[in-house]
Amino acid sequence: MKMIMAIVQDKDSNKVSSQLAKAQVQATRFNSAGSFLRSGNTTFMIGIEDERVEEVIEIIHQASRSRKQFMTPPLNMDSIMDSGSSFPIEVEVGGGTVFVLPIDSFRHF
Amino acid sequence: MKMIMAIVQDKDSNKVSSQLAKAQVQATRFNSAGSFLRSGNTTFMIGIEDERVEEVIEIIHQASRSRKQFMTPPLNMDSIMDSGSSFPIEVEVGGGTVFVLPIDSFRHF
Amino acid sequence: MKMIMAIVQDKDSNKVSSQLAKAQVQATRFNSAGSFLRSGNTTFMIGIEDERVEEVIEIIHQASRSRKQFMTPPLNMDSIMDSGSSFPIEVEVGGGTVFVLPIDSFRHF
Ligand code: NI
Ligand code: NI
Ligand code: NI
Repeated sequence: MKMIMAIVQDKDSNKVSSQLAKAQVQATRFNSAGSFLRSGNTTFMIGIEDERVEEVIEIIHQASRSRKQFMTPPLNMDSIMDSGSSFPIEVEVGGGTVFVLPIDSFRHF
Repeated sequence: MKMIMAIVQDKDSNKVSSQLAKAQVQATRFNSAGSFLRSGNTTFMIGIEDERVEEVIEIIHQASRSRKQFMTPPLNMDSIMDSGSSFPIEVEVGGGTVFVLPIDSFRHF
Repeated sequence: MKMIMAIVQDKDSNKVSSQLAKAQVQATRFNSAGSFLRSGNTTFMIGIEDERVEEVIEIIHQASRSRKQFMTPPLNMDSIMDSGSSFPIEVEVGGGTVFVLPIDSFRHF
């Protein structure tokens, strides 16, 4: 038995939840935040049999992998004055961090 | 020294807190949620001497054990039309999950 | 690699965050609460190389150490009737608890 602690971006958390549910993996969700930018993220705590650790990490990886996205930056007064328009830019979103911890014992009642 | 992570239903969390306090066991509480039904629950994080692990698990067990309860389901329009009344049904509430993790070291300042 | 779980008072949490950031230490923050007085605190979860464990604990220690502070207790009706004034008293604030846990593996994607 291992404990997996996984931190993913809020925008990926529902996908992570539903993919874990589809694989019948019980998880506990916590609202959390990064300490640098204080932006919200979601932490999942999962107790799982040793044989399924890699499978669970791969589920989280697929549901939260970092990828490029086009995003239109919000207009501000300067740019309106300047050009009157805003162009989509490519940004990187997603990504996650996973820790696997040993467990001494587990009880469900 | 061990770390106990215990997830219990919100309705049992105050009883768990007060029983831990009565036993002089320090705990940290987190609002959390199940990932299937997204229903709220409470996670307790407890650092405890090896000799007291079983005692703490038993406290949490007694305060959150699953049990049967009678509950009156909420009326909906169909059932009002149908029978004009709602009967109590037996449901299972409570239950918890406990993980015991090894700790390398501990510091209090 | 180790996992550090650190619980500090809310009033020290921004200092802890910024000192960790200054040392380039990634951390995840959680709102939490003590189970005795239910007062809010903040829990930091940090994955860190073995060689930096002591450094990180010392950062948290310096940013949250318990110290004496003078505080003016809030006036209540009795004391107004009684003396008409309120005197600063010395109270202890701060302090933290740190757990260091072993990690089997770590992944970032
Ligand atoms: Ni039982
Ligand atoms: Ni000190
Ligand atoms: Ni990848």
